[in-house]
Amino acid sequence: MTLPRAELIITGCTVLLHDDQERIGWEEDAAIVVRGGAVESVTTAAAVRDTPAAERIDARGQVALPGLVNCHTHAPMVALRGLAEDLPTERWFNDVVWPVESNLTEKDVELGARLACAEMIRGGVTCFADHYFTMDTVAAVVVECGMRALLGQAYFSSQGPEGREDSLEFALRHRGSAGGRITTALAPHAPYTVTDADLAATAGLAREHGLPVHLHAAENRDQTDTSLVRHGRTPVEVLADTGILDADVLIAHGTGITERDLPVLARAGGRVAVATAPRGYLKFAWPTTTPIRALRDIGVPVGLATDGAASNNSLDVWESMALTSLIQKSTEGDPRWLTSRQALHHATLQSARAVGLGEEVGSIAPGRRADIILVDLTGPHTQPVHDLPATLVHSARAADVRTTIVDGRVLMRDRHLLTIDVPAVVGELEERLPALVDRGHGRRVQQYDT
Amino acid sequence: MTLPRAELIITGCTVLLHDDQERIGWEEDAAIVVRGGAVESVTTAAAVRDTPAAERIDARGQVALPGLVNCHTHAPMVALRGLAEDLPTERWFNDVVWPVESNLTEKDVELGARLACAEMIRGGVTCFADHYFTMDTVAAVVVECGMRALLGQAYFSSQGPEGREDSLEFALRHRGSAGGRITTALAPHAPYTVTDADLAATAGLAREHGLPVHLHAAENRDQTDTSLVRHGRTPVEVLADTGILDADVLIAHGTGITERDLPVLARAGGRVAVATAPRGYLKFAWPTTTPIRALRDIGVPVGLATDGAASNNSLDVWESMALTSLIQKSTEGDPRWLTSRQALHHATLQSARAVGLGEEVGSIAPGRRADIILVDLTGPHTQPVHDLPATLVHSARAADVRTTIVDGRVLMRDRHLLTIDVPAVVGELEERLPALVDRGHGRRVQQYDT
Repeated sequence: MTLPRAELIITGCTVLLHDDQERIGWEEDAAIVVRGGAVESVTTAAAVRDTPAAERIDARGQVALPGLVNCHTHAPMVALRGLAEDLPTERWFNDVVWPVESNLTEKDVELGARLACAEMIRGGVTCFADHYFTMDTVAAVVVECGMRALLGQAYFSSQGPEGREDSLEFALRHRGSAGGRITTALAPHAPYTVTDADLAATAGLAREHGLPVHLHAAENRDQTDTSLVRHGRTPVEVLADTGILDADVLIAHGTGITERDLPVLARAGGRVAVATAPRGYLKFAWPTTTPIRALRDIGVPVGLATDGAASNNSLDVWESMALTSLIQKSTEGDPRWLTSRQALHHATLQSARAVGLGEEVGSIAPGRRADIILVDLTGPHTQPVHDLPATLVHSARAADVRTTIVDGRVLMRDRHLLTIDVPAVVGELEERLPALVDRGHGRRVQQYDT
Repeated sequence: MTLPRAELIITGCTVLLHDDQERIGWEEDAAIVVRGGAVESVTTAAAVRDTPAAERIDARGQVALPGLVNCHTHAPMVALRGLAEDLPTERWFNDVVWPVESNLTEKDVELGARLACAEMIRGGVTCFADHYFTMDTVAAVVVECGMRALLGQAYFSSQGPEGREDSLEFALRHRGSAGGRITTALAPHAPYTVTDADLAATAGLAREHGLPVHLHAAENRDQTDTSLVRHGRTPVEVLADTGILDADVLIAHGTGITERDLPVLARAGGRVAVATAPRGYLKFAWPTTTPIRALRDIGVPVGLATDGAASNNSLDVWESMALTSLIQKSTEGDPRWLTSRQALHHATLQSARAVGLGEEVGSIAPGRRADIILVDLTGPHTQPVHDLPATLVHSARAADVRTTIVDGRVLMRDRHLLTIDVPAVVGELEERLPALVDRGHGRRVQQYDT
């Protein structure tokens, strides 16, 4: 009798597992069997010694984790990395980012997205939630590079009804594409750039088509204060009143979420999640960070994110994981809060839920898609290991990811990218930068005044 | 005529240079000539084409920076990395670290220091200021691994006069050893563990022997408050009253430095510097960070540090550089403050001054010791480069350091360590961990009650 052939078998690693209470545990010297792009089993090396497989990876000394999820980014903005430094939010938008974005071509977006995917795959990110323009191009890059993504075509009300319609058409056109690796969302920019009427219309479309909504809201305290002055309501209350909170909704940042928003979020009719990208909040010197503890208390999952590289300077979700733990301890004044185990829960199950893939990814378990990363802990900076969660969260770095797998396909093997040619992308992008960064025209895609 | 042979020539890199106002500039496609362990010249590749050299490094696509300086650490504590997690300061000391340190053997210190040096060399650190016990062993590791170090044998008053005397003897015995790579300091632990009489005696010894003092002071706000209650003086005022501030003094942390301390520090008779290690302050949820802006206003250099890996979880000075910039922006509420150029000034000249090597290292210039690192910026996470300081501080990572050179000697080439065998160190250390972490005896080296 011939045993059926697996696509991929990984042996010898320590595997992060979740128990039925979602507690994190570790299976040592384990084997992961992948078939049909999904995890078939997590077993022992001995059990799979004779199982035929198209590919085998010997991962001794490595830890297998669910791939990281970047729950809110603008991938093509890597082209602007380092262009708008040390500026307050308003000047960052109005003086640099929105003028430059008025120059963006499809080719810029393509190259930016490709470079972003290269960076994310090298950093152990297997899935990202992108919220940007020219998203057909981003979708094509996702198809080609093999990642998983939740994509939304962003729109402002200043574009007229077309923006909203394009966002819907994009979502319907690409939903479930790339063999299911692409899911889609409606993507109004934010309550301060999209009218209540457009938000209400978007909420209706979300209900009608069963689509989630991904948008910025209560990004910072200023936005909340301005919203209260102008509308007598917080941004979250605007989302409730316009029906957005009756859809599945992914809120980016939420550092301006206040006490009065908590019952509103708790009562939401859909599934609400928040994405936190703490590096940028520090860099912009925002006075608060995402109130993770309060959100956890009302059962709202908080996923990890980087935002775009124009503010965050990297798409390093590993750093977001460490910073989330550190900044939460500091903000809450409690060193016992947001332990490394909690950080790993945010990085795995909560991030998967935030992007609407809570049943598909976020843990290594039979039936889940095989989005797996292998992390090398043999470096001097990760030894000795007294406490594996602490080693992973506070000592390991993105560069310790050796292998990145999505849907059972190896996208990076031993630090070598298999689907993206970085020097070619960088060479092409460099030639385009002078035209991209030109601000002589005085145009901008939008005006920031919260 | 034969040209004299250089030890090392590095070609093709972009070199960070300081002008006579200490502003940072860049020399592209440059060559660095090293002779006698020092930088002889920074010139062009063409100028050195025919210069004979024992070793040449082609560093195209890389940036040459002065080696990073870890201005305050306890290198052997890497053996405790991850052992005391998510705890308040007092429990961290009393329940875990000080009980475990009572088990420390010379062999543990040797292995810990060796592993620490491996981590630091891989992270681009060429020099570290160490403050610990069994420092003869640490000195031997420094000799063998090729790093530069400012070493001090720590003491508590609870050890009796012996502790203080050992600290002096260590400093005199090792000063200038390892061909000048080792400098030494007197190392009282802190004003809350060392009596005023011992501090005054140490100040006298510092004057008599021309030695600097390296100690913890005003580590956090609690310590300052307790000092005010007990002695009516802040820790910095204690340092002034006991004469410590008339010596050259390196203060670790100083997050408890208050407004009233600033004139005291400004009037100090010696050279005062502060080392900041912001990661640990976040992790312990201390309410403040090092007041860098106030210290800069009175001309006190602030060097970058990691503290020990038992609190910081790594000896990653690159991360300290990025975090210092981020946390300073956030704390001061000013995104324009602590720019990437300022962060690089802290990482180079200010850190060199903090460890008393302001004339020897900290910049790549003729006559300075050749402590140089080569950083690869070709990775997708560091492209494109719109602003080189921002790329270095906010996008690059410790793992992007490819080559580390101290005194003209290559300690890591292309990520490969040349002076330390990490697997051997880890293997030996692992066997010793059960005895090291045993806390059944109920002893501790000291009691923390600030």
